[in-house]
Amino acid sequence: MSQERDKVRMVEVGPRDGLQNHTGLIVPTEVKVEFIKRLAAAGHTHIEVGAFVRPDKVPQMADSEAVFAALDGVASKGVRLAGLVPNMRGLERATGQAAFGEAAVFTAATDAFNLRNIGTTIEGAFRRFEPVFRAAAEGNVPVRGYVSVAFGTPDGGPCDAAYAARVAEIAQRLIDMGAYEVSVGDTVGIGTVADVERVLDALIPALGTERIALHLHDTRGQALANILAALHRGVRCFDASSGGLGGCPFAPRSTGNVATEDVLYMLEGLGYETDIDLPRQMAASWYIEGFLGRILPSRALAAARATD
Amino acid sequence: MSQERDKVRMVEVGPRDGLQNHTGLIVPTEVKVEFIKRLAAAGHTHIEVGAFVRPDKVPQMADSEAVFAALDGVASKGVRLAGLVPNMRGLERATGQAAFGEAAVFTAATDAFNLRNIGTTIEGAFRRFEPVFRAAAEGNVPVRGYVSVAFGTPDGGPCDAAYAARVAEIAQRLIDMGAYEVSVGDTVGIGTVADVERVLDALIPALGTERIALHLHDTRGQALANILAALHRGVRCFDASSGGLGGCPFAPRSTGNVATEDVLYMLEGLGYETDIDLPRQMAASWYIEGFLGRILPSRALAAARATD
Repeated sequence: MSQERDKVRMVEVGPRDGLQNHTGLIVPTEVKVEFIKRLAAAGHTHIEVGAFVRPDKVPQMADSEAVFAALDGVASKGVRLAGLVPNMRGLERATGQAAFGEAAVFTAATDAFNLRNIGTTIEGAFRRFEPVFRAAAEGNVPVRGYVSVAFGTPDGGPCDAAYAARVAEIAQRLIDMGAYEVSVGDTVGIGTVADVERVLDALIPALGTERIALHLHDTRGQALANILAALHRGVRCFDASSGGLGGCPFAPRSTGNVATEDVLYMLEGLGYETDIDLPRQMAASWYIEGFLGRILPSRALAAARATD
Repeated sequence: MSQERDKVRMVEVGPRDGLQNHTGLIVPTEVKVEFIKRLAAAGHTHIEVGAFVRPDKVPQMADSEAVFAALDGVASKGVRLAGLVPNMRGLERATGQAAFGEAAVFTAATDAFNLRNIGTTIEGAFRRFEPVFRAAAEGNVPVRGYVSVAFGTPDGGPCDAAYAARVAEIAQRLIDMGAYEVSVGDTVGIGTVADVERVLDALIPALGTERIALHLHDTRGQALANILAALHRGVRCFDASSGGLGGCPFAPRSTGNVATEDVLYMLEGLGYETDIDLPRQMAASWYIEGFLGRILPSRALAAARATD
C-alpha cells in the first residue's frame, strides 16, 4: 500500500482539437481563457490551447495569439500550453508568445488524408517540418509529433500489418527529427482493440512506451476499451477532451475526442494517478457546456449531472 | 486461419430491460413484436421479450402474454425467448405461452436494493425462487439467474473483496437451485475494470467461465472496457440492448444498457464470432428508434447514421 501509484499523463485537447471541430462556432477569447484556467485549476499540466494556422481557413483558432497572451499566469505556474504549428510561419507566430510552451506538429498516416487536410503528401509534410524542427531546437521549444488516422480510415483500407508498419515508420521519423513524443491518433474513431494492439506492437519496439501517446476519438464507443488495451501494453499518456468536446454538431450524438471524464473515471477505478481532480474537471466541462448551450457527450459527466 | 473463431453469445435485452426502463412509455404490442422479429432476423438467438410482473406496477410489460403469443413463429425457429419471472404467479402466466423459452430470475446483491425494488431482502427473494425453480425443473423450463448491482451501488459502499464474495455466493446459490447460468449485472453502470476483475476473480473459481454472463450498463462509459476485461478473463456471454435502449428519458444522454452495436463492433474487430449481422442489427435499432422518436445512445449506431 505504500507503493507509489502508477502515473498516467493526460493531455487536455478540448480547447484546441475540441473547439476547432465545432465548425462554424466562434468561442470568444475570454471564454476560452476562462475554460483553460479552470482546466489548469483542476490539475491539468499539459493543455492544447491554440493553432497557428490560417485564420481564414480555421476561424475558430484565429485568436490563438490573444489566448496565449492571456495565459502567462497559467504558464508561469508550470502548465505546458501547446499550439498547433503547421509550418515556419506558424512557429514564428507561436514563439512570439511568452506562454507558448510546446509545438504540435501533425501529419496523417496516408497521403490521401494529408492531401485533403493540409494540401500535401506525407513527404510534403515532412519537408515543411524540417525548418520547424530546426528552429524549435534552436529556440528550445519542445515538439510533440502527431500521426492522425493511425488506425485506418473509412476509405483508406484496413489497419493491417503494413498500415501499422507505416505508422511506426512515420512516428520514428518524427522522433528522429526531434519530437520528444508521438501522439498516435484514431482521428475518425474507427479502430478497435485489435487495431490498437497491432499498431502498438509495431510502435513499441521502435519508440519504447515512454515516447508514445494515444489520441483516440470515441466515434464508435471503442475509446475506453482501446485505452485499456494500450495500458496493458505499457502506454501511459493519453489525449482527451473535456466532456468529449469535438463532436460534429451536425451528426446527432456523434462524438469526437474521448471524454476526459470517462478516461479519468476508468483510470481512478484502476488505481492510476493523474493529479487531475474529477469534480473540478467536470466543473470546467460544465462551464464550456453552459456557453455552448448543448449537452456534451461524456457519459461520466452525464451520470454526475443526472444524480446531482 | 482455418482455426475456428472464438464464439461469443449475445443476449438481447432491449425489448424487455430496455423498453421497461423508458418509464411512462407504452410501446404497442405490434411494435414490440415487429422489433423482436427484426432482432431474430439479424441473427439473435436469445432475446428477453417480456416480464410477468404486476401490470399495475410495470405497465410497460403488461402485454407480455400478447407479445409471446405473437412470437410462436420466432420461437419455433429456435430463438430462445425469455421472460422475467419474479414468483410462482409469474411462472404460471409465462408457462401458458407456447413461445416462452426461459425464465429470468432476479435478485440484487444488497438487501437495500432488493427492498426498494422487489420489497424483500435477498433471503426473501430466494424464498420466492424456491417453488419457481422447482416448477421450472418439472416443466423443463431453463432458468437464468441474474444478480443486479453486482459491482456496487452509489449508496451501498464500494465493490470490495467482501462485496465480490457476496456476489459469488449469491450466484453460486442460483446455480445450486438450478439456474444454468448467472448474468451478473452492473445495474447502475458504476463499475470499472478493477471491479469487474475483482468480481470475476471471486465468481470464476466457483462457477467457471461458462456459467457466467455479464450484464453491463454504460452509464459512465465504462461498459466496453469492462467487457474487454471480462473477455480476457474468459467470459463469453454478454447481455446488451439494441441501440443502448433503456437510458432514462429524464437525464439527457444518460445511458442504460450497453448498446448491442457498440459491443458487436468491438467483438468483430477482435475476431469473435456472434452470428449477428451488424447492419441488420442497426436496422432493427432504427426501427424502434423511429417509433420512439428519439436518438438512441449507441455510438456505433450514431457513426453509421452520420456517414450514411
